[in-house]
Amino acid sequence: MLHLYWADESSAPPGDRGLAYGDGLFETVSVTGDRSPLLGYHLDRLSRDAGRLAIPVARSELEKVFNQALLRYSDLYGTGQWILKLTLTRGSGGRGYRPDPGIQPNLMVSHSAAPAPVDPGGVVVDFSRIPLTVNPLFAGIKSLNRLEQVMAARELRGDIYELLMSNREGHVVEGTRTNLFVCSGQTWVTPPASTLAVAGVMRRHVLARLHSAGQEVREAPLQLEDLVGDNCHGVWLTNSVLGVVPVRNLAGHDLPVDQRLATIVGLPAILG
Amino acid sequence: MLHLYWADESSAPPGDRGLAYGDGLFETVSVTGDRSPLLGYHLDRLSRDAGRLAIPVARSELEKVFNQALLRYSDLYGTGQWILKLTLTRGSGGRGYRPDPGIQPNLMVSHSAAPAPVDPGGVVVDFSRIPLTVNPLFAGIKSLNRLEQVMAARELRGDIYELLMSNREGHVVEGTRTNLFVCSGQTWVTPPASTLAVAGVMRRHVLARLHSAGQEVREAPLQLEDLVGDNCHGVWLTNSVLGVVPVRNLAGHDLPVDQRLATIVGLPAILG
Repeated sequence: MLHLYWADESSAPPGDRGLAYGDGLFETVSVTGDRSPLLGYHLDRLSRDAGRLAIPVARSELEKVFNQALLRYSDLYGTGQWILKLTLTRGSGGRGYRPDPGIQPNLMVSHSAAPAPVDPGGVVVDFSRIPLTVNPLFAGIKSLNRLEQVMAARELRGDIYELLMSNREGHVVEGTRTNLFVCSGQTWVTPPASTLAVAGVMRRHVLARLHSAGQEVREAPLQLEDLVGDNCHGVWLTNSVLGVVPVRNLAGHDLPVDQRLATIVGLPAILG
Repeated sequence: MLHLYWADESSAPPGDRGLAYGDGLFETVSVTGDRSPLLGYHLDRLSRDAGRLAIPVARSELEKVFNQALLRYSDLYGTGQWILKLTLTRGSGGRGYRPDPGIQPNLMVSHSAAPAPVDPGGVVVDFSRIPLTVNPLFAGIKSLNRLEQVMAARELRGDIYELLMSNREGHVVEGTRTNLFVCSGQTWVTPPASTLAVAGVMRRHVLARLHSAGQEVREAPLQLEDLVGDNCHGVWLTNSVLGVVPVRNLAGHDLPVDQRLATIVGLPAILG
């Protein structure tokens, strides 16, 4: 049994373990009017990763709440894009880190306007000084433990749109709020899921579209030279709210920009 | 300016970044009656580590809140031991991970009864299957990003009192809620601060007492054989609430138990 909280009528439950320990996970779902094309992927990820954290919740329960939220909020935004946020925590209480055996999850629902759209001519990106550390057991989980991303995002200045984070092997893994695709020669490359802090639903969608378009795709670690070397034919950021964003300049290095990935992925049709 | 919330009269502030991203840190302070011998260390750690996370707060502000909390709650517990918890977050709101420039921290205060005292004859300990990953920039910070410790604490079963966590180098670093001291030959050994998820205030106290007692102390990585080999003359867990706890059995291996460390550290006089 899920305890449901609407952020516009009640505050976070007392003793919630999301606040105490980051003991939970979240989804930010892009909605246009009352349509959310990637909803299935969001529900898949949230229910699967809740299971990895042993937080018991059924996909069908989450879908029901999503539909309630649509009824509740979609009129506020007309036909425009908006964001629905679901925060699922293990529940309240426990003896310190150790949760009580019968603990019931809390689900908090909030909504907000969509961010400004991104210049299709591309964005300026730099490297973060914050190293990315990923526990292999929690790789890809959009958990509430996001201090590294917060500290990296604090470094955003001026027209820098995103900062790329590297792990201790020196591989460039992802942005603070985006995944990464590189066109290397004839191949699309993105870092492997096992190395990611967050495995984005848009990353999954892009991979699916590249595969069905018959493109050559590799999930492989990225080195700096893969991003700025002569063999690099473009770098893209992906995120379920922003879509597919080309990078026009990376750490002072101009990159080729085109709409190939956006065309293959078919975002306008899907997210429009 | 700090926004202060007493958990017994108000809930967590809306949009708090502690809940959203684990963007904050906490202290659990042991109080006996109205005395808290390690308070200075708690205030040092909380103000210093808030600074490392660029959360602006003065030690004197925290001390003032602590004194208010003593006035408010100490009558509830008479001369007994109780726990005061301070949760400091970066504040509310922001654009996703990126905090607003003028954001003001939230400080939430709660209290609880002390846990049952530990058998001075020692406790039974095992190894966790959850690997410990520590971002070197955040080493030692008692941040709200504690998912690894939660997942490890979920494995506690039966009379197992604590689980020890190892990093990817295979070094045994700490327990889910305790730091670790080993008596190796004539030397006291504890893992270096740079490798710790949480650098406990009791660890600091124990180190200070060992030094002033003229004992030989080393901060060095611990291998499994340091804990169960012939040269091991005892293993202790430390924690500001529990004090110094000898380990009598580690993963099925009996260990020598004595009160040497407790005597040197002088806990009864200090925490009594």
